[in-house]
Amino acid sequence: MAPVTAPGEEMHALVERLYPLCRSITGDGVRATLDIVGEYVPLDVHEVPTGTQVLDWTVPQEWNIRDAYIADAGGNRVVDFAASSLHVLGYSVPVKRTMPLAELRAHLHTLPDHPTWVPYRTSYYRPEWGFCLAQETLDALPDGEYEVCVDSTLADGHLTYAEHVVPGQVPDEVIVSCHVCHPSLANDNLAGIAVAVYLARWLAERTPYYTYRFLFAPGTIGAITWLARNAERIDRVRHGLVLACAGDPGQLTYKRSRRGDGEIDRVLEHVLTASERPHRVVGFTPYGYDERQFCSPGFNLGVGSLTRTPYAGYPEYHTSADDVDFVSPEAMADTLAVCREAFAVLDRNRRYVNLSPYGEPQLGRRGLYDSLGGRSDAKEAQMAMLWVLNLSDGGHSLLDVAERSGLPFDTVAAAADALGAAGLIKA
Amino acid sequence: MAPVTAPGEEMHALVERLYPLCRSITGDGVRATLDIVGEYVPLDVHEVPTGTQVLDWTVPQEWNIRDAYIADAGGNRVVDFAASSLHVLGYSVPVKRTMPLAELRAHLHTLPDHPTWVPYRTSYYRPEWGFCLAQETLDALPDGEYEVCVDSTLADGHLTYAEHVVPGQVPDEVIVSCHVCHPSLANDNLAGIAVAVYLARWLAERTPYYTYRFLFAPGTIGAITWLARNAERIDRVRHGLVLACAGDPGQLTYKRSRRGDGEIDRVLEHVLTASERPHRVVGFTPYGYDERQFCSPGFNLGVGSLTRTPYAGYPEYHTSADDVDFVSPEAMADTLAVCREAFAVLDRNRRYVNLSPYGEPQLGRRGLYDSLGGRSDAKEAQMAMLWVLNLSDGGHSLLDVAERSGLPFDTVAAAADALGAAGLIKA
Amino acid sequence: MAPVTAPGEEMHALVERLYPLCRSITGDGVRATLDIVGEYVPLDVHEVPTGTQVLDWTVPQEWNIRDAYIADAGGNRVVDFAASSLHVLGYSVPVKRTMPLAELRAHLHTLPDHPTWVPYRTSYYRPEWGFCLAQETLDALPDGEYEVCVDSTLADGHLTYAEHVVPGQVPDEVIVSCHVCHPSLANDNLAGIAVAVYLARWLAERTPYYTYRFLFAPGTIGAITWLARNAERIDRVRHGLVLACAGDPGQLTYKRSRRGDGEIDRVLEHVLTASERPHRVVGFTPYGYDERQFCSPGFNLGVGSLTRTPYAGYPEYHTSADDVDFVSPEAMADTLAVCREAFAVLDRNRRYVNLSPYGEPQLGRRGLYDSLGGRSDAKEAQMAMLWVLNLSDGGHSLLDVAERSGLPFDTVAAAADALGAAGLIKA
Repeated sequence: MAPVTAPGEEMHALVERLYPLCRSITGDGVRATLDIVGEYVPLDVHEVPTGTQVLDWTVPQEWNIRDAYIADAGGNRVVDFAASSLHVLGYSVPVKRTMPLAELRAHLHTLPDHPTWVPYRTSYYRPEWGFCLAQETLDALPDGEYEVCVDSTLADGHLTYAEHVVPGQVPDEVIVSCHVCHPSLANDNLAGIAVAVYLARWLAERTPYYTYRFLFAPGTIGAITWLARNAERIDRVRHGLVLACAGDPGQLTYKRSRRGDGEIDRVLEHVLTASERPHRVVGFTPYGYDERQFCSPGFNLGVGSLTRTPYAGYPEYHTSADDVDFVSPEAMADTLAVCREAFAVLDRNRRYVNLSPYGEPQLGRRGLYDSLGGRSDAKEAQMAMLWVLNLSDGGHSLLDVAERSGLPFDTVAAAADALGAAGLIKA
Repeated sequence: MAPVTAPGEEMHALVERLYPLCRSITGDGVRATLDIVGEYVPLDVHEVPTGTQVLDWTVPQEWNIRDAYIADAGGNRVVDFAASSLHVLGYSVPVKRTMPLAELRAHLHTLPDHPTWVPYRTSYYRPEWGFCLAQETLDALPDGEYEVCVDSTLADGHLTYAEHVVPGQVPDEVIVSCHVCHPSLANDNLAGIAVAVYLARWLAERTPYYTYRFLFAPGTIGAITWLARNAERIDRVRHGLVLACAGDPGQLTYKRSRRGDGEIDRVLEHVLTASERPHRVVGFTPYGYDERQFCSPGFNLGVGSLTRTPYAGYPEYHTSADDVDFVSPEAMADTLAVCREAFAVLDRNRRYVNLSPYGEPQLGRRGLYDSLGGRSDAKEAQMAMLWVLNLSDGGHSLLDVAERSGLPFDTVAAAADALGAAGLIKA
Repeated sequence: MAPVTAPGEEMHALVERLYPLCRSITGDGVRATLDIVGEYVPLDVHEVPTGTQVLDWTVPQEWNIRDAYIADAGGNRVVDFAASSLHVLGYSVPVKRTMPLAELRAHLHTLPDHPTWVPYRTSYYRPEWGFCLAQETLDALPDGEYEVCVDSTLADGHLTYAEHVVPGQVPDEVIVSCHVCHPSLANDNLAGIAVAVYLARWLAERTPYYTYRFLFAPGTIGAITWLARNAERIDRVRHGLVLACAGDPGQLTYKRSRRGDGEIDRVLEHVLTASERPHRVVGFTPYGYDERQFCSPGFNLGVGSLTRTPYAGYPEYHTSADDVDFVSPEAMADTLAVCREAFAVLDRNRRYVNLSPYGEPQLGRRGLYDSLGGRSDAKEAQMAMLWVLNLSDGGHSLLDVAERSGLPFDTVAAAADALGAAGLIKA
């Protein structure tokens, strides 16, 4: 396992390794992706058979592809899957035919507004075949006959997803979820995968309070499959975060859980505000990434979503322009840093009860007052103790104390530690 | 019955028909008014005997008037009830005397600030007689003896009010109330009566969900009488609207129910805002029209009030300047349109439960996704379905969904219809 | 007892009488202070022995001082307790030595930024001796030997505090607390004591609804002692106010109770706003004066704090510049006026129930309508009756009615009196 030294560069290197693979909601591209991720953090890989009923859905047939191309009359490949996994319509059924360009056009997808970009298209649940190509490539094609070949298989198989768990002091869980179903798109979602991996490694160096469960699963059907197979675990999920679009140049965007005021929501908003990063916090909407599933009304989990520019919010979204140059080490390092700051707050955010709640306890005779001297941070530490004592009625969390007092969370948490050690409060 | 073609003009014509009648809180003027209203919508007319105890009040004696005038020494009528019903103090006791102008002055009411206008005055509960006239008329009267005559009767009789019911699918009721006790004043409240009549006819063309009950009753004592005689019905009243001052040139004003956040309040505020009409929404106050009675603390019904310029808010209020020219077909048509829009929302505003609440249901295999194609309104319909599914937890109404999503209520309601037909939600 | 004529001047005279005394958290200075206060209002003086356990604290030894000075080699007193009680470190242990200036410096406290001011310092819970002096005095001392003398005693004795009760119609209590432990500091807190005394005398001239209990006690340990010895009384405390810094030139500042929306909080904010005085309302913080103890989470009483410039908010704070000239008769009179206005509201702020809640009761036949005539205040009185009737559902207080209606509290309270006398509402 590579040493953790410069996470930004390392995360970018991971994105570059994963980029060429042809991922989809099932198939060997997902398995190859998880093999690589497994080199960084140990994974439990799950294979769920085609036809398995998962909530309202059914696990589809597995799709695999070996080759795909359009060749001209001279046998030259004018569109070639080998050059980019985006060139083939995701879940294309197999085809091997010759046909005139006029007929072929119905199966071609381009972006007229961005003539050099290749779009990303899929047809998961309706049998289709097709190709995606640059508009300028299409424009250069002379009329005539073309050979089209999609050497794919759609057959009973499995849906593949993986879990990585960082054990904590309590069985209560925080889930971090990222989708692994997009082919050669870097921001959406290789950057999210890379940030999740390095976040997991950072947590593993600690002994966190919560148990942290990382999910690497295809979008929608993967989250639904996990939810269907973990019914008994759902009640343990206290908080969660969906990571996506984690490397583009835009400012960070936190999208609240459906609850709107869940602890994860308050923590992310607090950390983004306290860090003085430019950022946006937006309300829950029932589209985007897998927060749609975690926040469906039957589950209604406290799961928010952290992105830089959100879902569909940048021109490069779902095009070949979302490549490894679109995501930067700096942006991924920044996203990772916010995740670390947020989980450092979330993980320590307890509610305490003041065991000496009638009047102020005498801090001086316990060494909590005298020991402070005249340092400027001593005054702040003193205030933090008074605030923690005053608000520790079982109803206020340390985050509440930090927000009400205006003191940094770290100072408040340190005060709680000191008061706890003195036997004045208990969680 | 006249065909419903151009409601604005027709409502104005109804105002003109009703204008000359001398209405009061009892008497034949109210009966004549209800006779005309009954030509437009069928009415149940109720007659409640004098002396009937109604809540804290007692039905007063019935007042009727045949003639009233002030005549000069030459026998010329200088003030004549035949010219305007406003000239006599409402509920004047009979008088037939000759007296000098100096003595008569104590019984004369004018508006010095508007010397050409005749004020509207009453003395329902203290026996008085009097005349209302223009200040310039009074100024032109020479000193001398005048004959005064009020040929009225105050005698045991009845208080008259009427109901019109548009039956709905459920016995839960929406009441629409307007006062019918003001004599020749057009905005206050013939315009309100006319809008109520045409709103009732529009509802009757539908099969509404709620049962709609229209009340045409004298102000205060009429509403109190209805409330006193319908104690067993009150629990069925879900929502209500008091209509008054519905035809003046001012912008629309919605006055909230005492509850402040009743469904009627949210619907009216939503419709006024969504329609982008200039408007005001004001808090409940315990004066104005019969919302005072419906919103007394013992009843506390969800009854708001819709006016254009509110109660006492325009110079013409309670004067002869509130005549048929002060109200316009356009203003009444606009008030009617808002009522229709509001009741169209109110009538469809259900709370649904998602029957497939764990994850998103697969819309595609139910034809709710594929059928949408690429039309721009299809995207909105799709979003509306996702929002309805996500918020249908029994707690959110369709209006909640519309406001949270920013989608038009009609789009949300259509999505709910489609999801209901597919068996995915139920009310 | 002096007649109550010009409270501002009288309060200032009381400050001047109390100013020279050397108060501390125990000792004869507190007793002498309470003797003088007892000339204005009768006091119950309590003496609590050293060593008594009070909540988490222990009553300390009693400190008394007869003399203290620093004398130069010529025997001249260069710092003399007789000139100001501030010159000695509060709770100084006795000392009688000769030492060089270099060694003495460790026991000297000055304010380099305000070279002519003497600071106020204490060491209640750590045995120390020391002197406070002007920086310019220190700068003028030549090197050499100095005699230092603190003729004090620290010995088992008592902690002294006093109570004054204005009996009310109900046993429910309002407490007014002010600290009496500061030596020659006028604003902090002789002005607070003086305002409390004159507030008590004003209340005694009435028959208040609540029982008002005034506490004159040393800061922190005094409040803690009172709370420890009155456990059974705490449940009777409905509201409270800590008075301090009541005479400086700054604007009034109300600091909310820990509850934030207690009745005392709403009353003070209402009165300060309605009076159109410049003022600030700030949230609770767990430092400042004895609201810290009353608002500790175990008690969580509805106790706010009224000051002019708050705790530590002015340069003169805890220095010799907080002298009798720093506080003015006008400022103290203004503080007293706000206290009177606030308690006049608090004392009448009942919740009523409308006994005729179905529709409006007929005010006319009860003489509540006719009697009003056409005076401009009659309209306001009429509106106040309608508001009180409408909101008297047991949930709204008269303050709620005043704030919702925008009518003055006095008008609302007068309407409630009239309606109560007519049997239409009851508390």
